[in-house]
Amino acid sequence: MYRMKKITIPMDPPHIVVLGAGFGGLTFCQAFRQATARITVVDRQNHHLFQPLLYQVATAGLSAPEIAQPIRSILRDRPNVTVRWGQVSDLDLDQRTVRLETGTLPYDYLVLALGSVTGYFNHPEWEAEAPGLKTLEDALQIRRRILLAFEEAENCPDPVQRSCLMTIVIVGGGPTGVELAGAFAELARHVLRRDFRRIDPRQARVVLIEAGPRLLRQLPPRLAAKAAARLSALGVEIHANTHVETVRHGELQLTGGRQIESANIIWAAGVAANPLTRKLGVPLDRAGRVLVNPDLSLPGHPEVFAIGDLALVTGADGRPVPGVSPAAMQMARHVARLLEAEVSGRSGSSTRPSFVYRDRGTMATIGRSAAVAQIGRLQFWGWPAWAAWLLIHLIFLIGFRNKAAVVLQWTYSYFTYKLGSRIVTGAEPAQNRPPHPADKAGPSEAAA
Amino acid sequence: MYRMKKITIPMDPPHIVVLGAGFGGLTFCQAFRQATARITVVDRQNHHLFQPLLYQVATAGLSAPEIAQPIRSILRDRPNVTVRWGQVSDLDLDQRTVRLETGTLPYDYLVLALGSVTGYFNHPEWEAEAPGLKTLEDALQIRRRILLAFEEAENCPDPVQRSCLMTIVIVGGGPTGVELAGAFAELARHVLRRDFRRIDPRQARVVLIEAGPRLLRQLPPRLAAKAAARLSALGVEIHANTHVETVRHGELQLTGGRQIESANIIWAAGVAANPLTRKLGVPLDRAGRVLVNPDLSLPGHPEVFAIGDLALVTGADGRPVPGVSPAAMQMARHVARLLEAEVSGRSGSSTRPSFVYRDRGTMATIGRSAAVAQIGRLQFWGWPAWAAWLLIHLIFLIGFRNKAAVVLQWTYSYFTYKLGSRIVTGAEPAQNRPPHPADKAGPSEAAA
Repeated sequence: MYRMKKITIPMDPPHIVVLGAGFGGLTFCQAFRQATARITVVDRQNHHLFQPLLYQVATAGLSAPEIAQPIRSILRDRPNVTVRWGQVSDLDLDQRTVRLETGTLPYDYLVLALGSVTGYFNHPEWEAEAPGLKTLEDALQIRRRILLAFEEAENCPDPVQRSCLMTIVIVGGGPTGVELAGAFAELARHVLRRDFRRIDPRQARVVLIEAGPRLLRQLPPRLAAKAAARLSALGVEIHANTHVETVRHGELQLTGGRQIESANIIWAAGVAANPLTRKLGVPLDRAGRVLVNPDLSLPGHPEVFAIGDLALVTGADGRPVPGVSPAAMQMARHVARLLEAEVSGRSGSSTRPSFVYRDRGTMATIGRSAAVAQIGRLQFWGWPAWAAWLLIHLIFLIGFRNKAAVVLQWTYSYFTYKLGSRIVTGAEPAQNRPPHPADKAGPSEAAA
Repeated sequence: MYRMKKITIPMDPPHIVVLGAGFGGLTFCQAFRQATARITVVDRQNHHLFQPLLYQVATAGLSAPEIAQPIRSILRDRPNVTVRWGQVSDLDLDQRTVRLETGTLPYDYLVLALGSVTGYFNHPEWEAEAPGLKTLEDALQIRRRILLAFEEAENCPDPVQRSCLMTIVIVGGGPTGVELAGAFAELARHVLRRDFRRIDPRQARVVLIEAGPRLLRQLPPRLAAKAAARLSALGVEIHANTHVETVRHGELQLTGGRQIESANIIWAAGVAANPLTRKLGVPLDRAGRVLVNPDLSLPGHPEVFAIGDLALVTGADGRPVPGVSPAAMQMARHVARLLEAEVSGRSGSSTRPSFVYRDRGTMATIGRSAAVAQIGRLQFWGWPAWAAWLLIHLIFLIGFRNKAAVVLQWTYSYFTYKLGSRIVTGAEPAQNRPPHPADKAGPSEAAA
């Protein structure tokens, strides 16, 4: 009844191991509805993170639990799904095993959904000076550093050093960079405005650096121009066509010999696939992404799939499918349907369907009541785009409680210009001060 | 017009330095309404913490920002108040200066409101194995350890070790211990119940250890008995008349040779005044509290006051005023009124009024819909006490946003039996595993 070339199906329910419970891994577990397979999902965090709102945690608008949900809690009603909190240390595709630091998992099918990490273009040493924004820890660290920098500025007698402390530089003009720049400009101009006695937070500089000719290259030029105009109105300095030459402690060297002193540099310029892909022994692109087959399986390994940010697959338009959450979720559903059919013996042929990406559009928000959005052929901006952005993010934010809490926070912030999550934990004021030029002789913060 | 024996009032507005922005320090800043003095308030955190709800952060019911508010934000409309985020390193009462790690503050009046720390009765080495609950970091660490312990238990093949991981011991049967025990019992029995596949969280042991003959000695015996019965119904094991002899890595030695193996020991048994009081050179009690004059000033230093947990003062009933937030707030208002009168020259006599403590009652909540309360001569329990507890905590929780967010969380948790803040940050699963006997040979977690 059931036959396939390379895969032998065991008599007991096959075991599917899913690595990663981001948008890809979690959607796979939810979309695979049949009880004909055991699923084990492994993540190194106990929570699924709603990454599109991560920048609001970094800019003190939301608290960490509001955009995260325990993975166990999301999957509690799936008796055939086991959640395992652990770190993957190795993979053996020939032996079909995944090695965790706390044991070994054999699999019949493997779904790689480990996502991406911040990419520094072969300059890993920049990470300590210019943190990226990928995890809740990243977001909390950025929030901590910037709030501490304003505190330091309040007590700093030297105007040069004070201006360094009050300068925020964001490298990378994609959606994350644009959203961070807008949110920081509002934080300084509206939220912190009346809280200090000696400094005027409105004098904070927010600088956005983009290597390409314009912001938001994912969007049509007209919308990108709207976004840039809105950022400029908020006081953000935009430097396009500008490459970063070096990142040092509290300063940035740019093309053309320009230099910016800043205690708060944030890296939103690049991503790379999870470094675990290098252990697979299959062809990768420069960013470490797996060159998958059209069905998303690995070359030579039909029982292994890669989905989400770590898979490189080409869309119908000949361009690579972008590393965004809707793409990861579509890939997850594709593999879930494909495996459901194979496991239950319903797949009539031995050729698998190819993955087809449907572009649902792109959007970015720029501070209060402004956004730009492209949905299909539709382009819009300002209030309507912002309303659409709000609605879409709420619909996708997993878990009712989080939705309600986020609505509450947003409503409150909107009317009061206050932000609720300006709380720093895990930092003693003196030990954890942000880096600035005067500190150069001392131990770097990254070592602390 | 204005005369006083020992204090000379400078012609420019006097400078009042307030150390600590807890209930005492913050209330002082809010109650001192005249602009006739400059006030500088120093805290080592950027936020005021609503300590009575801290146990709910530890037990994953609330997120950290929900019970904390930036000090700057609370005091933004007081132009004569300056907020300074910093750690006090030394005090010089003769020179009238406070030394911070980032500078020196001279003062005309000093208000010490530094609060208390967890006290280990001359066993500081127990702190690493049995953390206390005083700060947001403490609460987040307890939450992290216990959620990690359940994850470890899920993957632990050894039944002895598994039972150690699933045992939570709380030392100290005061309100904090009782509230923690109730909340942990509910966490295991209701919230985590369906989330695991191999362990049954309902089999978790929650043990409450009290050295005295009964729980809640602050309350009448009848109410304490009600609380004990309610805890027992939730499955909490109560050991009264039981002293802790030793705390070791993952185990507890009790009087009579009894021993409990537990990966999760929490210390709620004692408090001591902030150790900075030892630098004052004035008489202290055994817990390090300052023996203040009836007006709350320090012996020999009428310009220095101690309020809140670090002051030892006797109430009208001859008993020491307890270290609770209403007492700290009453002391703050007393000193604020007294200094307002002195600074503005309104104080007619050279004798200052004595502080009079008004006991507003005591209450403790025990899990879902149960509490015990004494307000004046009134004693009540069950639903009515719980409703009173809710109302009073909401009224005092500073800041509208927090109130609304907490109401939302509580309503949601009440109807769904889910908790919103089961999010662990700052921990990699493998590096940060909780201590248990099998780990004894390895490095202790406290060192990590």
